Amino acid sequence: MRVQSPSMRERTKNVLATFSERSSPHSRNQRTAALKGPLTMSAPSKPSQRLKIALAPGDGIGPEIMDAALALFKEAGVHNHVDFVPTEMGRVVFDKGNTRGITDESVRIVEDCGVVFKGPMETPKGGGGKSVNVTLRKLFSTYANFRVFKTLPGVQTVYSKAGINLDFSIVRENIEDTYGGVEHRLSNDMIQCKRLISAPGCDQIHRFTFHTARKLGIKKVFCGHKANIMKMTDGLFLDRFKAAAKDFPEIEIGDVIVDALCMNLVIKPQQYQMIVLPNLQGDIVSDLAAGLVGGLGFAPSANIGKNISIFEAVHGTAPDIAGKGLANPTALILSGLMMLRHIGLLKQAATIENALLSALESGLHTGDFGDPALPGYTKEPANTNQFVRGIVEKLGEKPKTVTPAEVPEQSTPTFETSPRPEGQTMIRTFVNIVSHVVGCDIYLDSPLSPPAVAEEMMRASQDTPFKLSLISNRGTQVWPTGSVYTECVDYYRVRFELREGNLPGTIGQSRAVALMDKIAEKFTICSYELLRIFDGVRGYSMAQGQ
Amino acid sequence: MRVQSPSMRERTKNVLATFSERSSPHSRNQRTAALKGPLTMSAPSKPSQRLKIALAPGDGIGPEIMDAALALFKEAGVHNHVDFVPTEMGRVVFDKGNTRGITDESVRIVEDCGVVFKGPMETPKGGGGKSVNVTLRKLFSTYANFRVFKTLPGVQTVYSKAGINLDFSIVRENIEDTYGGVEHRLSNDMIQCKRLISAPGCDQIHRFTFHTARKLGIKKVFCGHKANIMKMTDGLFLDRFKAAAKDFPEIEIGDVIVDALCMNLVIKPQQYQMIVLPNLQGDIVSDLAAGLVGGLGFAPSANIGKNISIFEAVHGTAPDIAGKGLANPTALILSGLMMLRHIGLLKQAATIENALLSALESGLHTGDFGDPALPGYTKEPANTNQFVRGIVEKLGEKPKTVTPAEVPEQSTPTFETSPRPEGQTMIRTFVNIVSHVVGCDIYLDSPLSPPAVAEEMMRASQDTPFKLSLISNRGTQVWPTGSVYTECVDYYRVRFELREGNLPGTIGQSRAVALMDKIAEKFTICSYELLRIFDGVRGYSMAQGQ
Repeated sequence: MRVQSPSMRERTKNVLATFSERSSPHSRNQRTAALKGPLTMSAPSKPSQRLKIALAPGDGIGPEIMDAALALFKEAGVHNHVDFVPTEMGRVVFDKGNTRGITDESVRIVEDCGVVFKGPMETPKGGGGKSVNVTLRKLFSTYANFRVFKTLPGVQTVYSKAGINLDFSIVRENIEDTYGGVEHRLSNDMIQCKRLISAPGCDQIHRFTFHTARKLGIKKVFCGHKANIMKMTDGLFLDRFKAAAKDFPEIEIGDVIVDALCMNLVIKPQQYQMIVLPNLQGDIVSDLAAGLVGGLGFAPSANIGKNISIFEAVHGTAPDIAGKGLANPTALILSGLMMLRHIGLLKQAATIENALLSALESGLHTGDFGDPALPGYTKEPANTNQFVRGIVEKLGEKPKTVTPAEVPEQSTPTFETSPRPEGQTMIRTFVNIVSHVVGCDIYLDSPLSPPAVAEEMMRASQDTPFKLSLISNRGTQVWPTGSVYTECVDYYRVRFELREGNLPGTIGQSRAVALMDKIAEKFTICSYELLRIFDGVRGYSMAQGQ
Repeated sequence: MRVQSPSMRERTKNVLATFSERSSPHSRNQRTAALKGPLTMSAPSKPSQRLKIALAPGDGIGPEIMDAALALFKEAGVHNHVDFVPTEMGRVVFDKGNTRGITDESVRIVEDCGVVFKGPMETPKGGGGKSVNVTLRKLFSTYANFRVFKTLPGVQTVYSKAGINLDFSIVRENIEDTYGGVEHRLSNDMIQCKRLISAPGCDQIHRFTFHTARKLGIKKVFCGHKANIMKMTDGLFLDRFKAAAKDFPEIEIGDVIVDALCMNLVIKPQQYQMIVLPNLQGDIVSDLAAGLVGGLGFAPSANIGKNISIFEAVHGTAPDIAGKGLANPTALILSGLMMLRHIGLLKQAATIENALLSALESGLHTGDFGDPALPGYTKEPANTNQFVRGIVEKLGEKPKTVTPAEVPEQSTPTFETSPRPEGQTMIRTFVNIVSHVVGCDIYLDSPLSPPAVAEEMMRASQDTPFKLSLISNRGTQVWPTGSVYTECVDYYRVRFELREGNLPGTIGQSRAVALMDKIAEKFTICSYELLRIFDGVRGYSMAQGQ
């Protein structure tokens, strides 16, 4: 079903029903066909029509809020259509010595289901265990993190008190940037982290963003970035944003430097509808945005990939209250609503959302929030079970103080998955580019002074096609010119470029490797980069002061 | 003069009087000796005792707000002690074809003065011109950006309306991180930016932070970071923070992941007194913080180096209102107060600050802010000159609704500079470390599949001391194990590590370069890193999924 003329509030609701973009959809099983007929809560489908969702309750308060969310979903008829398949992830798996935090069997379940519903999970400190959250995103290439930030009734914040109602979303690239975790100690004193931004990675996230914006009827999308400093990497992110926008002419675009964005968000957050950002900046800005609507306890999150998607509460495991039945399940319920829409249970999702909003506006609250001005507010907060029972009681009602979700007559499931790939997929943007070697950057672990380094480098390169063109330290040029006020560390970048008379295309990389070999006789070479031009465009930045 | 028992408000005021940490102070001229005696506004010092400050009014609204700030300072007696020496920077210099945006003569003036008072400057679009702001920071190694965020009377914000009064500061590392701007296109589709964090760079900023905290009587300092993802680089930043803290046992420390920090800052900003962060994160968080107190128009900024310090307004040049005499000079005045304290004019600074606060609380305002509830509020805003005259009228008064700055009986100047260095200074932390080669990471520009790359790499390394240990793509392992759901780009990292039987220390880097040379026969090697252990500790990260 296609919702007509969506209201502001409605907009961010149906998004996940249809935002997977697939060029050649294949139904892996009978789901799609089976769900084309009317879906009602009173008419359970036949067993053969059931959907499967991988279930990962999580650690700490995870199991109790997951039980609560599922109890609510069951009352709304979700279980008539869905089987939740248990998996093993998180602490129990780490405790068995599995440093990945997920069993092979559970990986297979996730791959089979294509959808994961996940509570918060601990990352064990020490012992080499990595965050399951990050591992899942990487393992299943869920390249887009989609988060919605909406003012909820009864959830008091600095902004709600100021009468500012929010309803916007952030798309965060979920794979690249410094999150590859590629780090090297290059000298005694210098450590490097590689920040990687690829054109096809940008294209994926920007297409996702515009498709989603189109579904939601959003009129303007902003790209947040730091392209004034990271001119090539974030420059690429911004260029590909503009390129992707051309296929969505009805959507206006804007771009904003991330520091200005954060200032704007605290001064006047209601000016944004949707923002797409690189990974680290998106991480920071989306948690800021969660703060604007009350914190992580009220902000749902979806990690969307081509094949597999993960819906999760991104707050912590709250070990201090775990097992006491006091936790607030709102973020997990909201993430679950995104999931229900993703698998096409639009009617159930809208019904649950209206019940949640009705309960919240009546004053129902757990111990972490609450507005005494609301009619049904009780000084004693509800525990987790009471909170969910309060929502269940409102099933079928619509909120009065905020715009209700529009409940469709029926659901139109669109969940379909691609077949399991036989190997890794290559994603590419730029092909048939002609590149030529024009030099190399060689990085030295050395405590020598800039003039001493320069002298050695000129000697090493004298009989090669390359001349020493600059030396920089921490990005600032220190040779041939520079300032005596520049403080240097024991890690130099030495740039060699083709001598006059050697045209690009006439010298291969072997001459650069040979130069490196020669320098390695006297210096520790901690790092190296080939300098090339791509279709005539320089593929490297200048030094500050060059 | 040492202020006793500083109040919360007093704390952040005197900071810049004494926060330069110098191991062996040298007075470059007669300033220090001359200014030891009492400094009063009524007793101008002799010409030989005068201070020099390099003046850069800036572009757009820069000249008019600088004139306003200087008029105010003159009325408060500052010019009895200070000569402001004009420099040429910014648009006028760019327009002459100088892409650095500062003349050589002006560089010499800055070096001679040691202090710069600076208005906002344009960065020309296109033409290769770089931001003068960034160039100055790099050129003069002003490694610490110190910014104070204080709620001002009459400046309405979402937070002031909620009754939240703020008074905290952020120290941002100003040289390292991705701000070196070292970027390379490594394949058709992949661009890299180097994120560099050095131990001595961390030590500088953390020592500055703790010294400043001690001066201000701050009880707890937080380190913001992303060490859960950038485990080595931000891990180093956090480790050196903890190491530096040991010399300041009276100051409690805490650390907070930057995304959580941003959420906390919008939910409950008053929980922080001082936060130190790496460059990019500090950039983002300090602009967020400026938003909490009304924006960049109310947030002063100082860039502090060992030899040279720059005090500037960080807002834009506002070309739309430039030349109309309408601009708000508050941020520049506040930055100037930091400067006056830095050069020891404590009494003048406190007097001006009290006059500013008195004027603001009376309702004086320019067109960009104002609180109609204040007694002297006028619907028609003051222009720049009227605004400054309104402050001048309050000289000698103290604010009634906020804690006034304590006006010392006399000023105790502490401004002294080191002699001009003869060459670049080396800064070092870890010396006498024993490192051994244990392998290398070689990065390929290749569209082949992971198994095809693996086969070639095994063949190339078969007669070398190194064995192929992993292949990753965008940080995620794709060989020997991996997921078919990992999407790959045309840029691989191939890791070679010592075969069994080859002990660390027995194989030199030349064998790694030889392996690279061999691989270069068939593949384009876009990048390379030597893998080493340092005092037995692995100097490189594992791949995700390894």
